[in-house]
Amino acid sequence: MSAPVVILVEPQLAENIGMTARAMANFGLSELRLVAPKNGWPKKGVREAASGATHVLDRAKVFATLAEAVGDLHGLLATTARERGQMKRVFAPEEAMTATADRIGRGERVGLMFGRERVGLSNDEVSLADAIVTFPVTEEFPSLNLAQAVLLMGYEWRRAAGLATLRFSGELLSPPATREALLSLFASLEETLAGAGFYPPEKREIIARNMRDMLHRMAMTEQDVRTFRGALRALHRRGPKTDEA
Amino acid sequence: MSAPVVILVEPQLAENIGMTARAMANFGLSELRLVAPKNGWPKKGVREAASGATHVLDRAKVFATLAEAVGDLHGLLATTARERGQMKRVFAPEEAMTATADRIGRGERVGLMFGRERVGLSNDEVSLADAIVTFPVTEEFPSLNLAQAVLLMGYEWRRAAGLATLRFSGELLSPPATREALLSLFASLEETLAGAGFYPPEKREIIARNMRDMLHRMAMTEQDVRTFRGALRALHRRGPKTDEA
Repeated sequence: MSAPVVILVEPQLAENIGMTARAMANFGLSELRLVAPKNGWPKKGVREAASGATHVLDRAKVFATLAEAVGDLHGLLATTARERGQMKRVFAPEEAMTATADRIGRGERVGLMFGRERVGLSNDEVSLADAIVTFPVTEEFPSLNLAQAVLLMGYEWRRAAGLATLRFSGELLSPPATREALLSLFASLEETLAGAGFYPPEKREIIARNMRDMLHRMAMTEQDVRTFRGALRALHRRGPKTDEA
Repeated sequence: MSAPVVILVEPQLAENIGMTARAMANFGLSELRLVAPKNGWPKKGVREAASGATHVLDRAKVFATLAEAVGDLHGLLATTARERGQMKRVFAPEEAMTATADRIGRGERVGLMFGRERVGLSNDEVSLADAIVTFPVTEEFPSLNLAQAVLLMGYEWRRAAGLATLRFSGELLSPPATREALLSLFASLEETLAGAGFYPPEKREIIARNMRDMLHRMAMTEQDVRTFRGALRALHRRGPKTDEA
């Protein structure tokens, strides 16, 4: 599946462009376009900031104007933190990327525009877009770093495209314990504790039930039961006896 | 509503700690704990990297050990990019923050642990957590920057806590046009175009219907209709006449 194109308009800092490339690589975006980068291109330090995502930087294309940078695209979204008074739809990143995944699925090419570090996109630049994307940040501190904004869009793109699988799961390495193994463990534990004089006789039943509840909450595996049994055997053989000697 | 505590274990770079503070402020997290920051604290350049989120840095607490840093918490999540062979639940950020919002809603305090820039958390550190969080990054480039990982967790926290409102909406500044206004506009347009000789007579009906479809897709507002009518009047008065003169 193709992915959205990231367009940075007059980006200034090597650090931000490098971190943008890294964030893109994290979520499977690979096409970076730079419109009139301030103080030239390539920039010193940009490869270090990309932290290995140099394939994105090496393929990055530089354009003199935004119109040239977006000419071959079918869809274009403008990211902005400020209201523009333009009669455009405003999306959260998730909605925007759901719509973008639909368009890309139909074979369209979609670009995501990000503005200058300090002043963002101009109103004229925003007016080239189909819709606006803004981020659900706090009123008190709404200023997102450029590469952070790219990261969130990449993250939501990957989710919307159905590609957001985790690299490993919490699948248990041992099968869950059977009820028989649990009941047998409970019996051993209660016997050991009774032998150590833990239960006041009139409360044995209720305390035992409470401990079974605690143990059930652990959702033990076969391996857990073996480990627990081994600890009980060790206590039975040595621990309490040494204390009592 | 309270929010999760962010715990950075032996962070090294001022840039990353500052950007972490900024990302936290973007999404309403304010409690930052630093465990044995490498090369001391405070660090030169950290305030600049925070880009104004100095309230988070000013309140940051430094701890000598992880055990001290997490002592008062009820829940603890470990973020990691690597499988650990530990029998822990593994969550994506969204699931993890949904569960965290539940716990915080019940009055519990929950911490999110992030490891060192190069090597992450040790297995012993991960073993202190209730569960693992990992990010749906690509196999080819899974290495997330520290502050980027914090940002994604903050973003998902804000969504899970029901606080992720956008700062402005795309609400139309003008009400939608009535069907009457649209039909009247279509009639004017068709009359103007017919007057200009645009329609081959036998195709007038079908071309007019296609144009009405295009115009319907614009979902025009009252203001849009006024603007369009003004443009038609101008063309009627001057444009075509000048060309023909």
